[in-house]
Amino acid sequence: MSIFKKIFSKSRSLEDGIFFNAVEKILGFAPQNLDNYKNAFTHRSLNRLSNEGNPINYERLEFLGDAMLSSVIAAYLFTEAPHGDEGYLTKMRSKIVSREHLNELGKDLNLIQFIESKVPVHHFGENIHGNIFESLIGAIYQDRGYAYCEQFIQKRVIVPYVDISRLEGKVISYKSLVIEWCQKEKKIFNYDIFEDNAIDGQRLFGVRLSIDDKVIAKARATSKKKAEEKASQRAYFALQEKMDKK
Amino acid sequence: MSIFKKIFSKSRSLEDGIFFNAVEKILGFAPQNLDNYKNAFTHRSLNRLSNEGNPINYERLEFLGDAMLSSVIAAYLFTEAPHGDEGYLTKMRSKIVSREHLNELGKDLNLIQFIESKVPVHHFGENIHGNIFESLIGAIYQDRGYAYCEQFIQKRVIVPYVDISRLEGKVISYKSLVIEWCQKEKKIFNYDIFEDNAIDGQRLFGVRLSIDDKVIAKARATSKKKAEEKASQRAYFALQEKMDKK
Repeated sequence: MSIFKKIFSKSRSLEDGIFFNAVEKILGFAPQNLDNYKNAFTHRSLNRLSNEGNPINYERLEFLGDAMLSSVIAAYLFTEAPHGDEGYLTKMRSKIVSREHLNELGKDLNLIQFIESKVPVHHFGENIHGNIFESLIGAIYQDRGYAYCEQFIQKRVIVPYVDISRLEGKVISYKSLVIEWCQKEKKIFNYDIFEDNAIDGQRLFGVRLSIDDKVIAKARATSKKKAEEKASQRAYFALQEKMDKK
Repeated sequence: MSIFKKIFSKSRSLEDGIFFNAVEKILGFAPQNLDNYKNAFTHRSLNRLSNEGNPINYERLEFLGDAMLSSVIAAYLFTEAPHGDEGYLTKMRSKIVSREHLNELGKDLNLIQFIESKVPVHHFGENIHGNIFESLIGAIYQDRGYAYCEQFIQKRVIVPYVDISRLEGKVISYKSLVIEWCQKEKKIFNYDIFEDNAIDGQRLFGVRLSIDDKVIAKARATSKKKAEEKASQRAYFALQEKMDKK
């Protein structure tokens, strides 16, 4: 009996286990202290307090995560854009860590599913996605330190989204890049709409890009053109990897 | 002969050796690649270029150092001020990394002595001190990584200068704190002016604070009152350590 007791007291609750697995999948490594990640998704409306009576919510971690993100992107740009002066680096960074971009990153990871709040989640504005993306980075720093933050940002921000040419405005359209590449490689491409509906009066288009009858990327946006461009961007990054492997 | 040759080719130039030692003393650890530190003190007026033709000057490192400083201070405040919300943390950080404060830090380390420039150093404005303090942090990041940045900022910024009570405005005057402590400890204190002159039309006072006939701190400022307060602040931090040891 005592052995059973030991096992049970040490095992996580079922709920924690599910959260642990979901967070691990997003991070790409195991959390050490799950509390950090719980804090990252705790809204102030819960009025949670630490044992010392200090408020616990994601806003402090957001401050921390914002700082870590800025540093990691600064170091990345410093190395990757050796031609750029201080003004250039500052401008590029603010494009990468723009509110709009952070919201997109948070949304893509569906972080909002983890939020604990007394206020209904649909009452939050758009910025909630970016805010909890930053608080998640803060939690990673608290849990595992700077190197893990760097690794996470590399995987979730830099590799899939950061393209210096695009940020510089040199790439006008990813769709044209994809088409150009397909023509050069003698591949057949096709954009088709797999979804067309309206949520809360907002029209939403889902576009699928296939190359040689294989689906390469999907994206949703408020216009067909935007969805095509988004899918093309995703395809472009996927193709880039392929092209590099050659 | 070949042995001699080997020794000589491996040894640093005399000039580099002096610079290496001076930098090591400031950092508290040995530089790995001295070029990083040379870049941190290179003014754009020299028009230096890398082998790839990219401009080399301290401005890019300043961008990097600014980011690292913000992160390290953010993490410090996150831990040390668990009662503070996001707004509080943001405000405290901006006080610590204020232009004025960074200039003071750069000046105290006399970093300006290392600047290489075509423009005479006295033509630079006051901000040069803070700018090269930041570029030095950027160089540390490039040379040794985040942990060494953290160590340097801990030693050169946080330990000697960061006092949350003071930043919160709770401490009105360090002079009154010092006097209070001396009275409680039955110690005799004395502020005396050891210097009173004018440079470029700017009056400068040097004040020395002694406690029980031992000089505890010295400071220079543009008024007697300011110099006394500065010396008191330095003494306060020195005394704090003593008081903690009790």
